[in-house]
Amino acid sequence: MAELTTRNGDPFDRTLFESLLKRRLFYTESFEIYRTSGNLTGDSRGLYDYGPPGCALQSNIVDLWRKHFVLQEDMLELDCTILTPEEVFKTSGHVDKFEDWMCKDLKKGEFLRADHLIETVLEARLKGDKVARGNAVEGDKADGEGKKKKKGPKVNNIKAMKLEDAVVAEYEEVLAKIDNYDGSELGTLIKKYDIRNPDGDAPVSPPVPFNLMFKTTIGPSSASPGYLRPETAQGQFLNFKKLLDYNQNSMPFASASIGKSFRNEISPRSGLLRVREFLMAEIEHFVDPEGGKKHPKFDLVKDLQLSFLNRATQLGGKTTLRKTTIGEAVASKMVDNETLGYFLGRIYTFLLKIGVDTNKVRFRQHMANEMAHYATDCWDAELQTTYGWIECVGCADRSAYDLTVHSKKTKEPLVVRESRREPLRVEEWQIDISKPKLGPLFKKNAKAVEAALIALSPSERESLATTLEKKGVITVTVPEMAEQVEISKDLISIVKRTRIENIREYIPNVIEPSFGIGRIFYSLLEHVYWHRANDPARGVLSFPISVAPTKVLIVPLSTHQDFVPLTKKITEDLRELGISCRADESSASIGKRYARNDELGIPLGITIDFDSVKDGTITLRERDSTKQVRASQEEVFVAIESLINGKEKWEDVFARLPEFLGQSGDE
Amino acid sequence: MAELTTRNGDPFDRTLFESLLKRRLFYTESFEIYRTSGNLTGDSRGLYDYGPPGCALQSNIVDLWRKHFVLQEDMLELDCTILTPEEVFKTSGHVDKFEDWMCKDLKKGEFLRADHLIETVLEARLKGDKVARGNAVEGDKADGEGKKKKKGPKVNNIKAMKLEDAVVAEYEEVLAKIDNYDGSELGTLIKKYDIRNPDGDAPVSPPVPFNLMFKTTIGPSSASPGYLRPETAQGQFLNFKKLLDYNQNSMPFASASIGKSFRNEISPRSGLLRVREFLMAEIEHFVDPEGGKKHPKFDLVKDLQLSFLNRATQLGGKTTLRKTTIGEAVASKMVDNETLGYFLGRIYTFLLKIGVDTNKVRFRQHMANEMAHYATDCWDAELQTTYGWIECVGCADRSAYDLTVHSKKTKEPLVVRESRREPLRVEEWQIDISKPKLGPLFKKNAKAVEAALIALSPSERESLATTLEKKGVITVTVPEMAEQVEISKDLISIVKRTRIENIREYIPNVIEPSFGIGRIFYSLLEHVYWHRANDPARGVLSFPISVAPTKVLIVPLSTHQDFVPLTKKITEDLRELGISCRADESSASIGKRYARNDELGIPLGITIDFDSVKDGTITLRERDSTKQVRASQEEVFVAIESLINGKEKWEDVFARLPEFLGQSGDE
Repeated sequence: MAELTTRNGDPFDRTLFESLLKRRLFYTESFEIYRTSGNLTGDSRGLYDYGPPGCALQSNIVDLWRKHFVLQEDMLELDCTILTPEEVFKTSGHVDKFEDWMCKDLKKGEFLRADHLIETVLEARLKGDKVARGNAVEGDKADGEGKKKKKGPKVNNIKAMKLEDAVVAEYEEVLAKIDNYDGSELGTLIKKYDIRNPDGDAPVSPPVPFNLMFKTTIGPSSASPGYLRPETAQGQFLNFKKLLDYNQNSMPFASASIGKSFRNEISPRSGLLRVREFLMAEIEHFVDPEGGKKHPKFDLVKDLQLSFLNRATQLGGKTTLRKTTIGEAVASKMVDNETLGYFLGRIYTFLLKIGVDTNKVRFRQHMANEMAHYATDCWDAELQTTYGWIECVGCADRSAYDLTVHSKKTKEPLVVRESRREPLRVEEWQIDISKPKLGPLFKKNAKAVEAALIALSPSERESLATTLEKKGVITVTVPEMAEQVEISKDLISIVKRTRIENIREYIPNVIEPSFGIGRIFYSLLEHVYWHRANDPARGVLSFPISVAPTKVLIVPLSTHQDFVPLTKKITEDLRELGISCRADESSASIGKRYARNDELGIPLGITIDFDSVKDGTITLRERDSTKQVRASQEEVFVAIESLINGKEKWEDVFARLPEFLGQSGDE
Repeated sequence: MAELTTRNGDPFDRTLFESLLKRRLFYTESFEIYRTSGNLTGDSRGLYDYGPPGCALQSNIVDLWRKHFVLQEDMLELDCTILTPEEVFKTSGHVDKFEDWMCKDLKKGEFLRADHLIETVLEARLKGDKVARGNAVEGDKADGEGKKKKKGPKVNNIKAMKLEDAVVAEYEEVLAKIDNYDGSELGTLIKKYDIRNPDGDAPVSPPVPFNLMFKTTIGPSSASPGYLRPETAQGQFLNFKKLLDYNQNSMPFASASIGKSFRNEISPRSGLLRVREFLMAEIEHFVDPEGGKKHPKFDLVKDLQLSFLNRATQLGGKTTLRKTTIGEAVASKMVDNETLGYFLGRIYTFLLKIGVDTNKVRFRQHMANEMAHYATDCWDAELQTTYGWIECVGCADRSAYDLTVHSKKTKEPLVVRESRREPLRVEEWQIDISKPKLGPLFKKNAKAVEAALIALSPSERESLATTLEKKGVITVTVPEMAEQVEISKDLISIVKRTRIENIREYIPNVIEPSFGIGRIFYSLLEHVYWHRANDPARGVLSFPISVAPTKVLIVPLSTHQDFVPLTKKITEDLRELGISCRADESSASIGKRYARNDELGIPLGITIDFDSVKDGTITLRERDSTKQVRASQEEVFVAIESLINGKEKWEDVFARLPEFLGQSGDE
């Protein structure tokens, strides 16, 4: 893997980066004072709290998501419960199938996720090989060192050991296909390559399935098992009928949900990337399966260029990206249909809007075993981080599976009924039965005979019609009687007729874009992080203004009492406008204060100096360029509002307001 | 209880009201298709999904909450996990104490919450008495009928039965104090009044405690029990040290959290009012316990008039409200301190801002047994609904309890350390020990003797100093040795000295306003509901524009093709501005379409007619007055934006734009 760099080309130092995030309380491990004091005996890893800037960033991302999808696409938002009775997840298949493969360290008893174990060990061996060949690059070393998995398999020291070329190729192929193996295949790989727990080198048990849902009991009687949902989707499917009704029976439409989901990960690792409780935003777009799943707004996205990694490439053991337009991807059938393609485009524009680096996004297609058996096609939007390419958004065509299984279980018809524009003329062989004659003849078996006749397929009907015509009698197998009976012409007639169908009934298919907000959150932080020239200690988070946790920093030039009233007034005026701001009245130098707040990614800074107290003018500084303008409070506030609303860019403001070249503290 | 009316004085019809909410999908029971099809065998009641308008209303309430509290008060928002290891809730007391008292129906095995059972039965008897006395009023009947508890105790038919006056007084006193009884007292009441399950009349078991937390297991080993949090508070306490640091060590400050909490209610009832999964918004305001817990912004709320129901009144068996200012309430010590008073004021202004009826808010003080033992004072903001007065916000002074217990458990000092402005001079008796002499004398007991000396209290030190001075020897009890030892003058000296303390260390107290968003949501819906004159079927939800789920309705006069492009353009233009809107292009009459959307509480309506297509002017209608103005699209959009931003009121817009008197459909 090529070395990962920050947006301005410096090597990415994850140690510095993560220390910034924790120091500024973007997030922290939950219950940390219990953990560090040795009060947590069990396995409560994989749980994180978001501090003030993290919390604001998360809620700004969610807010933009809601505007980009729910508002702009007129989706029907739902807020369904996390607690779900067992019956629902039995039907959906989660009770039986929502599991990962788990191995046990035979010495320490530690549990490890089988595919991750293989990945870690083979990657370490490949690195050892590189080192032995003298090919190790700076990035590999950083990668190996930075990857401080808390308790997962540790590969701290890369052992130099040359592998045969064929072995290298084999390992690379296994890694490219790692998501495609089932439990027994993973077991075979573990044996074949003698995979052990790198933390202690003990052998591991063969993989066993482990269900990832958290179980609990609802109500006081303990007779009602329930689960914490592992996704928000099922609540949306269960409400389908009401949503369709709310939407005045009009198709297609989409529902959407934002909320917490839970997965009892076997071995959480990689910080925020594999956690047990996480925020999801999911869309279920219901579409008519007929007519190629066209999308009315497809034209709006068709010219967008995306980087695709398709199924065939991965199965060939490669990870080469193909850059092409969504239009071409759908036309060539690489992406199954327009609706799927449309959402890939909308996902992409959303990611760019919140500040994701366009060069660090790819769309990877699922391999056959990786997809649910009912899915038609599935693509992940992956973001590149120092942990590798991370699946942040899944976009699957789930066919009619979910609605079908719930409908079958509950007998509730989860279907769309539409008047046909043109009535459908169906030519079919109909059987007319003379019940007054059939009854007395077959007595208690009459119903069974009738059922057998009705069950005849169109082609059987057609051939029997000929027989009946020719011989005057036919022979029909009646399963319930376990015998064949003869039925003569006077009992039935089989005739070809045209039936007119005015109503069409169908179960919609579902296209499901599903966003892991926590993973997007972390990847975005990596993408916007850089540091000022030649000073790795001066980290900056260059959030777009729309997602920045705090919009405006207010810094009085000194702690002089004269500045206090104006600082207070500006702070309150901004809050009154609903603009989040933070005053830094400490005695640190102005440059130091700006640097400190660059770490929080505050895009705009207001400086109050002695002139401000005299004439009311203030300066406005832009974080990335460190350029400043000076104007009246009123003018500066107008500029701030239009920057936040997106009506102006900094360049516009900078062009129209006089530049200020005084104390910036940035020189 | 007096009959409850809608905002314009009509009797409140809950059946019509709730049918509106369900029909328009504000909320729905979760997994309904499983329940109605008989697929849910267990007890999964008390779980609700919010549909599109409910979801938008909820998120607008949360948004205003965030602006009113987090932004305006500069609070530090946190997002902590729901999953919490058992150790944390052991320390907080929830594992041992977070329980309700539960009785079992001895025939049907059904579980009932003891206090609710008593309440229901006594209230029914009091109603029966009223009916017998011929005092029953319309409201009582409606109350009894409307109270369709899903599966809880049923009191559908009021049995007329006169009670003695003394019994009536006794019942009323019990009901006023119902929150003040513990389990054994509830048991006594059940025996004394022969309380049975009204649903079947079977006797019930004595009350037993039932813990309300949902339990689960974290990680694959099943050795780590965990709970779903029943409140968001603990996560905030555990992060106290980091928050203080983030706040640059400055006090007071507050943290805030918005998120789901879970309580395994014994017998959920009353729709959204007693549920098992709910959204909370909680503030923990950390304050110095010294100096009377003043609040710097108290002046801003001190003149607000609130309706108070204090502890003494309730213990006297009454529910009379006392209307007075917050300033007076704090001055008279009815409300314990300024900070508590400040938050009661902020809670009140928040409730009014979202549209709560000022005549249906009261602040009820907790009685002694109702409060946690460590709490200094606690007030609930209660909202009046057809279910009675509902606790929607709690506001408690929790003293230093939480930080103290977590600090003790983890040994992490959850304290504030402040430089004293003036160093504190402490006069104290210090003991100087000559260790070189003490050691050889007491050998292995030397440490124990030393500890016993250090443990002496100030008054003991003082009196022993005199003894030592007089007799040259003192006698000290050494607990570890279980004996007394003599210590002579050459081993120690006890002298009065002045110590200078530059640093003050203290554990902050916590004032905790805690909002049940679901209860506020439901009560608000009752408060804004009314119907057009003489037409109970024409329900209106008069949300303030800021919380209305959808802001603008767009109605073309007819389904004529000419209207389609303009309807589409206006819809898209509004969405581009981030304004939620809904076009109703159905063929129903314009009056019918407005009526339909009054039910969704859409405050503004745009009508597109033939003139619109010609000259681009459109009309803007206000929901409550049904008045309309007519202007260009641009002017109307400016008006809409300023109405939403709160820069103008409808009266302002109506005064400056020309009124339109054409088809309103409202006549």
